[in-house]
Amino acid sequence: MGLIVQKYGGTSVKDAERIKAVARRVLRTRNAGNQVVVVVSARGGMTDELITLAQEITPRPPEREMDMLLATGEQQTIALLAMALESMGTTAVSLTGVQVGILTDNVHGKARIRGIKPDRIRQELDEGRIVIVAGFQGVDDHDNITTLGRGGSDTTAVAVAVAIEADMCEIYTDVDGVYTADPRIVATARKLGRISHDEMLEMASLGAGVLQSRSVEFAKKYGMPLCVRSSFEDLPGTVVCEESEMEDMEGVTIRGAAINKSEAKVTIIGVPDRPGVAAKLFSTLAEHHINVDMIVQNVSHEQHTDMSFTVGHADLDKALEVCRSILDDIGAESVEGDHSIAKISVVGVGMRSHFGIAAAMFQALADAGVNIQMISTSEIKISAIVPADDGDKALQAVHDAFNLGECPDIVEEMT
Amino acid sequence: MGLIVQKYGGTSVKDAERIKAVARRVLRTRNAGNQVVVVVSARGGMTDELITLAQEITPRPPEREMDMLLATGEQQTIALLAMALESMGTTAVSLTGVQVGILTDNVHGKARIRGIKPDRIRQELDEGRIVIVAGFQGVDDHDNITTLGRGGSDTTAVAVAVAIEADMCEIYTDVDGVYTADPRIVATARKLGRISHDEMLEMASLGAGVLQSRSVEFAKKYGMPLCVRSSFEDLPGTVVCEESEMEDMEGVTIRGAAINKSEAKVTIIGVPDRPGVAAKLFSTLAEHHINVDMIVQNVSHEQHTDMSFTVGHADLDKALEVCRSILDDIGAESVEGDHSIAKISVVGVGMRSHFGIAAAMFQALADAGVNIQMISTSEIKISAIVPADDGDKALQAVHDAFNLGECPDIVEEMT
Repeated sequence: MGLIVQKYGGTSVKDAERIKAVARRVLRTRNAGNQVVVVVSARGGMTDELITLAQEITPRPPEREMDMLLATGEQQTIALLAMALESMGTTAVSLTGVQVGILTDNVHGKARIRGIKPDRIRQELDEGRIVIVAGFQGVDDHDNITTLGRGGSDTTAVAVAVAIEADMCEIYTDVDGVYTADPRIVATARKLGRISHDEMLEMASLGAGVLQSRSVEFAKKYGMPLCVRSSFEDLPGTVVCEESEMEDMEGVTIRGAAINKSEAKVTIIGVPDRPGVAAKLFSTLAEHHINVDMIVQNVSHEQHTDMSFTVGHADLDKALEVCRSILDDIGAESVEGDHSIAKISVVGVGMRSHFGIAAAMFQALADAGVNIQMISTSEIKISAIVPADDGDKALQAVHDAFNLGECPDIVEEMT
Repeated sequence: MGLIVQKYGGTSVKDAERIKAVARRVLRTRNAGNQVVVVVSARGGMTDELITLAQEITPRPPEREMDMLLATGEQQTIALLAMALESMGTTAVSLTGVQVGILTDNVHGKARIRGIKPDRIRQELDEGRIVIVAGFQGVDDHDNITTLGRGGSDTTAVAVAVAIEADMCEIYTDVDGVYTADPRIVATARKLGRISHDEMLEMASLGAGVLQSRSVEFAKKYGMPLCVRSSFEDLPGTVVCEESEMEDMEGVTIRGAAINKSEAKVTIIGVPDRPGVAAKLFSTLAEHHINVDMIVQNVSHEQHTDMSFTVGHADLDKALEVCRSILDDIGAESVEGDHSIAKISVVGVGMRSHFGIAAAMFQALADAGVNIQMISTSEIKISAIVPADDGDKALQAVHDAFNLGECPDIVEEMT
């Protein structure tokens, strides 16, 4: 008998039939002798509907009210899933973020979890109920409803699992695991049996779309075993685990390749080459709660340089506005934005002990005729910004170059 | 400068355009120098959509989860209205029933308000904000979300007005006041300038559809002035006030006539004529939270009698089930249910000092060829159950008989 947290995303609960299917799967886990806590997202499409509704009222809705509105999505799902479970003869109870006590900071729309009170969940479990928790939402110090940002339900699931000391956190989604690349783009992509937290973190931050980054950070920090599985088929999935638990560590250099089309590029032209400019720029962006991803600054000519960085599409207008407001302050010339980019990355902890990975990746892109606009590297990742239209072709080229579609021992020989 | 509570129903906030129109009206009241608290319902049609969704999951959803689901309706409206107000340059804040602290008992679906904490609303008002409160919902002792039943937003509005000691509670709706009869059925119906709490209470309980009964009870109990107005036109409306404030008290016998098609009739046949039977029956129904309206028992024949009562349509199946379960216990023969009834009533505090009103009403129904199934009277009301198909004709006949469409001093002469 274990204590399992399961998370189901929007696609898995998008209508009554799917909600009943989720209920049946939850019930199977419970009937196998486990205590079960379920975290759910809003029904697929509902968050977008609510955003459209808000836009009909005003193009720039206040963030506190946006959270108040969006939080209704998950609240509906938890009620419906509890109904489905009760109709199957078991006892279940739904809890909102407020009722669970998911305490966050007050950054509406992008709140971070500060802590979770385990008491109410534990009490309901002790009384024999399946507990359904609303993902994505929390409450700040002043009882205001907050949301964690897109994909925040993954983080809710892991944070709840940590708070109640669960044995496992299972993330059910519309894919059956983590692949070497997005299988919708790369036909030869292969499902991974295991991936380390760090690799998953890089894949997630690259928009691999399977898990939200913060959820992986939480899982890594607290050593919570995480598993990505399909809500529709009964397949093994991918286990996200400690690096030490990876059996094939020696054999594999690159775990996977990813493409991210959700970022936009901002370039500030004619930045004077003096101390404090970058600090000023990025602290101002941070004050406006704009998450910056890649940052690239090249060597300067005549005491001036260009500085580029990427932000989420939704933040581009705000980022450009912020940059314009401090152009004079930092003595720069102008600022430009570009939506039409894609970020191609390769990830693998084995990269640490292998040379020439970057060169091999750039060669693959060159052979495919893809021009590189920006480059950024970390210990276990190499990313390149390319034109959006070349994105899919670039991903395929990189995946092929590292033979990611083939089994691990062959990959080793190639690199 | 005053402190005004305004309540807007589902039709008034059914889409973005109407929500903006409500925001403009709220702003006018605020700009006239008032502090304003707004109570809103779910967007028109939304509650029904959510009920349909729940029915797709299970025909008998648990009531706690139903409340969890339905409470999202008002939560969406408060967020949208706050957005609309902020987009017009004012500051506003939305609060759920939980955030306000609308404390109720734990009878899900029909909860009663036990108290309201005025602190958060007062604090937000003191900070210069317009406060938007979710109607219809509250929270029980264990942090569970409850709902007050259909029309509960009226009760929320009056209860909030009482809690914060408002100067006036205005109920905005799709009619522009209280009429002598439903103007959609009786073309000659006339709008009333004033009506006493007791008369309004009887009209409300009869399904006049303008105000929920409990809201009027609250207003009467705490002496809160209540006004029913149109959300769409800028017209005076009807003031619900203390009986002593009615100027025309002496002159008018019947204030209005009402029809209620939302009830069903239950008849228990062959009830033994012994003490305790009625007590057993109605206490059992109360335990199942079934509200009984009219109760009629006639003289008995051979120690047995028939007993009839009415309940809301939605409760008929449950009421029949409860009755069947105690048939043996009380020694009765059988039980029958009938959906096809209408209740016709006339209401007026002047009835107390006038004779022959009942006779005049029955004569009017007889002249119209309408058969009476049940009769029940109170101090200021006479009700008759008639076949549903004869309902509109019966209402018209009664309205005509008491000349309700004409101005009060003429009515006096007629009675």
